Amino acid sequence: MIRTGRLKSMKHKMTFERSHCPITIVLNTLGDKWTLLVVRDLVLGKSRYQEFMASPERIASNILADRLKKLGDAGLVTRRAYQEKPARYEYCLTRKGNGLKTVLQAIIAWGKKHYPGARVFPPIKRSKARSP
Amino acid sequence: MIRTGRLKSMKHKMTFERSHCPITIVLNTLGDKWTLLVVRDLVLGKSRYQEFMASPERIASNILADRLKKLGDAGLVTRRAYQEKPARYEYCLTRKGNGLKTVLQAIIAWGKKHYPGARVFPPIKRSKARSP
Repeated sequence: MIRTGRLKSMKHKMTFERSHCPITIVLNTLGDKWTLLVVRDLVLGKSRYQEFMASPERIASNILADRLKKLGDAGLVTRRAYQEKPARYEYCLTRKGNGLKTVLQAIIAWGKKHYPGARVFPPIKRSKARSP
Repeated sequence: MIRTGRLKSMKHKMTFERSHCPITIVLNTLGDKWTLLVVRDLVLGKSRYQEFMASPERIASNILADRLKKLGDAGLVTRRAYQEKPARYEYCLTRKGNGLKTVLQAIIAWGKKHYPGARVFPPIKRSKARSP
């Protein structure tokens, strides 16, 4: 019983790292200059490493790898291998991750209102059959 | 004419530091673990340094000073002195800053949905007359 109590207590502490405020909890994962840009790219239809790297913000490779891992750990992104030797992965938003669209939309609306000239990127177009 | 052109060009470059995407532009100012928490506290009715410091996330004094300055530079917050020697300031959201409520609401809605147990802080209550 004591052990269970300790585990619960640890879990509680991990879940609410800084406070139980939902804004704080969300910022624990998404509060930086890059993570939401990777989410944005996923929403736009990007899924592969080189596609994220090609975005105009020019994310560094190590930062991209770190953010994709954190998004995976938080249950926002899944990956599947589309190539072996060397292993290459495709990433896509989970249902939870996809729910962030409403947050992105709120940011876009506020951003466009206050920064004239700001323009959203269009979704990427590709044929359904993609190599390999 | 050339000088004007150069200035415009520089201004354009400054405005769109990484790209013209509104999400990117917003993250240039708000993309970290603390800035939106200061905005949250302002929305809740906090305005003074010690009030921000008393929030459960325990922001460090130097980080708070930096974020309040950045919020001021971005036109999201104004300050007024309420005491001299030593000078003390009260901060409040501008109309632009107040518009971030919609972003906070979207984050809260998504956060509450996916992190059971997350609870928003209530607005602070105080009498209108406040010392000094």
